[in-house]
Amino acid sequence: MTSPATQEITIADWHETLVRVRYSETDKMGIVYYANYLVWFEIGRAEYCRARGFSYRDMEEDDDAFLVVAESYCRYKAPAFYDDELLVRTHITELRRRSLRFGYEIIRASDGHLIAEGETRHVITDSSGRVRSFPEAYTHLLLAPPLVKSRTTGDLVPLKEGPE
Amino acid sequence: MTSPATQEITIADWHETLVRVRYSETDKMGIVYYANYLVWFEIGRAEYCRARGFSYRDMEEDDDAFLVVAESYCRYKAPAFYDDELLVRTHITELRRRSLRFGYEIIRASDGHLIAEGETRHVITDSSGRVRSFPEAYTHLLLAPPLVKSRTTGDLVPLKEGPE
Amino acid sequence: MTSPATQEITIADWHETLVRVRYSETDKMGIVYYANYLVWFEIGRAEYCRARGFSYRDMEEDDDAFLVVAESYCRYKAPAFYDDELLVRTHITELRRRSLRFGYEIIRASDGHLIAEGETRHVITDSSGRVRSFPEAYTHLLLAPPLVKSRTTGDLVPLKEGPE
Amino acid sequence: MTSPATQEITIADWHETLVRVRYSETDKMGIVYYANYLVWFEIGRAEYCRARGFSYRDMEEDDDAFLVVAESYCRYKAPAFYDDELLVRTHITELRRRSLRFGYEIIRASDGHLIAEGETRHVITDSSGRVRSFPEAYTHLLLAPPLVKSRTTGDLVPLKEGPE
Repeated sequence: MTSPATQEITIADWHETLVRVRYSETDKMGIVYYANYLVWFEIGRAEYCRARGFSYRDMEEDDDAFLVVAESYCRYKAPAFYDDELLVRTHITELRRRSLRFGYEIIRASDGHLIAEGETRHVITDSSGRVRSFPEAYTHLLLAPPLVKSRTTGDLVPLKEGPE
Repeated sequence: MTSPATQEITIADWHETLVRVRYSETDKMGIVYYANYLVWFEIGRAEYCRARGFSYRDMEEDDDAFLVVAESYCRYKAPAFYDDELLVRTHITELRRRSLRFGYEIIRASDGHLIAEGETRHVITDSSGRVRSFPEAYTHLLLAPPLVKSRTTGDLVPLKEGPE
Repeated sequence: MTSPATQEITIADWHETLVRVRYSETDKMGIVYYANYLVWFEIGRAEYCRARGFSYRDMEEDDDAFLVVAESYCRYKAPAFYDDELLVRTHITELRRRSLRFGYEIIRASDGHLIAEGETRHVITDSSGRVRSFPEAYTHLLLAPPLVKSRTTGDLVPLKEGPE
Repeated sequence: MTSPATQEITIADWHETLVRVRYSETDKMGIVYYANYLVWFEIGRAEYCRARGFSYRDMEEDDDAFLVVAESYCRYKAPAFYDDELLVRTHITELRRRSLRFGYEIIRASDGHLIAEGETRHVITDSSGRVRSFPEAYTHLLLAPPLVKSRTTGDLVPLKEGPE
């Protein structure tokens, strides 16, 4: 793309986090109620940020940047049940100056079944709801490889793919 | 029906019902949390059915037909706030033998602002989750005009458009 | 007030409002999940205020007074089911300078069964969480009889008990 | 104890599990909405069972025993905030043939503050809602010390207090 204001990426690294289905998340059909998948997507986003070295809470409170949801989509492929352990897989599918998109997969840990997949689009705003550009520091962190504990020093260091 | 497997309709009558935003539906941003819109869509579906003369509960319990959600989509256009009265507008955008789609609009009653619009796709199943065809009686009801109280007799009768 | 710190009342008028059980409020047992009763209590409080001529939202936003929950109690006497219409009955059981208590009953409209009863205790705070005394104007409104539409003028007037 | 039908215990071992506050659990006051504490209590119960060697899900599905909530109580002592890590501490405070009580504490992990404490009382029923006695096998498990991984064999073995 020619515009310097836009940085598109096909697919960033997936981040994975586990949730366990709560009794409150089921409905009388005996399966998870469909709105709760959007709650898990939100957990996926928060943990994606944490794995890149910052908390979404701090970004809101310290840097006045909010990821307001502009669109949500979910495709439900198989039911999830009470007490299931689910893998929430999250990645960034588009990063622009004032908006970004996350993609998600929900996979049951016990059998590897794909339960759902979805997407959310977000606009960056300040606390009063005005659209603003993404704080530069966070842009770099979001696209950086996730941080992992170094086997040698114990410090948090960027994950390197390939042989060490 | 000439095409036995498919009955498509461009747009059926909209049904309108009111919800009031609950404190529990807001989040720390001071606006409604995005997953709650899907809950309002569900209320829209239930009231759409009731306005056509049947309760979704009875369809599940008496006729073993469940509208399992296969896809959900929502576009958030303006925030909704605590205690707002919202008009949930619901209509059917596609009706097939074993699936259907609902479309929705959420409008703030006080100022007429369009807050959100969305869509859900459903597959008809029995209580064990097996796909089945839609009970014929309900197909007719879903596409019939909504029932209203007759001004003369007080009975529930189909709404007639145009001059009486 | 003779007792400057305390104004106790045995039982104020009950206010009644209707809620209909949402699909999202049920769980895999086929009945309403127990935490949702506290959400209905909150609706009862908000409608109690509205019936006395003010909105809880305005009290928060215009007068910086928040009813922070300090205690909640609920006794579940019979299950509630999807699509049930429930009467939420709310009254004030104690009103002090910096705290108050609400009592609740949840009754199924179709058969009059008592589904649950409960209580919440609240402390008045400002938006920063500091305890403050209740704004005087609201104290009067909370204990006043509810407002009803006058049969003669159509204006909102205090409900008078007994013969008119 | 004289009555063979009743087995009362003052305090059983506490079980501790961690939850992280979700964005969906906050409200416009910027703190956790009060009904969500009951959801965390439920997680505490489920994890208490798991630590004693059985899943609550299996008890429902394999042994037709449900812990229906009869009463809930919560005292809110300090607010919890988005992204807080909270320790949910759960123990059994009373175990009878057909009912039991759990006690809870919610503690913020970062500063050790007691956020809330509460209690729930449950009646044992079958899937049709009829009161029944607690399956004997589970009674023993509930009161047994929690299982831990043996340091020597890696097997799950009862936790022994005191020196090994």
